[in-house]
Amino acid sequence: MTGTVYLVGAGPGDEGLLTLRGLELLESAQVVVYDYLANPRFLKHCREDCEKIYVGKKADNHTMPQEEINALLAQKAREGKRVVRLKGGDPYTFGRGGEEGLHLRAQGVPFEVVPGVTSAIGGLAYGGIPVTHRNLASSFHVIAGHLSKEHPEGEEKRYRTYGELEGTLVFLMGARNIHRIAARLMEAGKSPTTPAAVLYRATTPRQEVVEGTLETIGALAHREEKPGLLVVGEVVRLRKDLDFLSRRP
Amino acid sequence: MTGTVYLVGAGPGDEGLLTLRGLELLESAQVVVYDYLANPRFLKHCREDCEKIYVGKKADNHTMPQEEINALLAQKAREGKRVVRLKGGDPYTFGRGGEEGLHLRAQGVPFEVVPGVTSAIGGLAYGGIPVTHRNLASSFHVIAGHLSKEHPEGEEKRYRTYGELEGTLVFLMGARNIHRIAARLMEAGKSPTTPAAVLYRATTPRQEVVEGTLETIGALAHREEKPGLLVVGEVVRLRKDLDFLSRRP
Repeated sequence: MTGTVYLVGAGPGDEGLLTLRGLELLESAQVVVYDYLANPRFLKHCREDCEKIYVGKKADNHTMPQEEINALLAQKAREGKRVVRLKGGDPYTFGRGGEEGLHLRAQGVPFEVVPGVTSAIGGLAYGGIPVTHRNLASSFHVIAGHLSKEHPEGEEKRYRTYGELEGTLVFLMGARNIHRIAARLMEAGKSPTTPAAVLYRATTPRQEVVEGTLETIGALAHREEKPGLLVVGEVVRLRKDLDFLSRRP
Repeated sequence: MTGTVYLVGAGPGDEGLLTLRGLELLESAQVVVYDYLANPRFLKHCREDCEKIYVGKKADNHTMPQEEINALLAQKAREGKRVVRLKGGDPYTFGRGGEEGLHLRAQGVPFEVVPGVTSAIGGLAYGGIPVTHRNLASSFHVIAGHLSKEHPEGEEKRYRTYGELEGTLVFLMGARNIHRIAARLMEAGKSPTTPAAVLYRATTPRQEVVEGTLETIGALAHREEKPGLLVVGEVVRLRKDLDFLSRRP
């Protein structure tokens, strides 16, 4: 009998932000397929005989291509295994969970999705920044921070629209493009004094937050390439009062 | 000694989507302050001597004003209690968690935030809709679906911008304004054939999904006022393959 594949979001990093359903599935999994974005500490929940397969390290050449991951998931399920595909954050928030699901459906392999806390919301919260706030932001906008070299016109048009949005802007995986994203938003009409922050390793013990404005954030951010997210909007100002981590006893 | 207030997101409804940290806090809480959006089943995790205070029922007149909730949280903490403020979804995603946090800070009461899975992402996933998908949506936009009668010009301007966005649009608490939201988006240039869906009670056993297009969704949606969310974008098309709930054995 074909097994089931569970696409599980592990949340932004803090082990406490895994869901109960995610824990239950990890504990009973026969195979776990995980990548660099999922905290390896989660694997301690697995059975001793669980096969743990690592499929990717950030920004190096050892990442397994998505097609191979898709095929691996289907193959393990066809062997009758209960498979957990563990992802950082949420499987459908830039997590390529949709591609995995479509492949499994096409192959006739049953799958389920277990949503997770996304860093775009939960990471911000740990950084003291509420993604919405009454009278400050009645919308938020989560945008892939990768910029395309192939379609600069499309990108310019998109950023013109983003620049008109009044809500909170969150750029995931945007840490290495901060200068360019900030420049595009200012070109699009966002004030250079709009508050902005970059969060690195949000919700983990090594969390770092850099705070500035659209004009200054590029220079303030780390030069090294670290995974991080950029947030732009008035809600960043609330951080001085809502940062609870640095006030923990 | 002053106690601590924990602003905890319970997730969209499914009990399995509570976080491990949320569970731990519920189990040890001396006071839980909860409202209609948080599934009352979560209260089974509480100690027998935990004081459970209900502060609001949707769309009736028995809701405790936000200022009174703020004051209640601070008062209970000042009595030395470990207080959980349990909210549906995520505390900072239109959850007024920021207001509660600011009040507690001003009163010198320690607080922490425990993010939860938002229905804007997790509810969609249970409805078979990935909030992002490679080549279909590289951004998503979560917007309060309440429309203001006071500032129609501001609203028109905002919807003109939303209409230009290429990513997935999610309107929370938008179920009763579907006709008007859809009309505004079409006025702003969105094609009437853009796929759209309304999700009711997402992730619960009584989940319902109504699928159509921007042009048809207003007529297809339920007339009664039910809490629901509206999603607009090409990703809705993936539902036919990614809906896993109705295929569960």
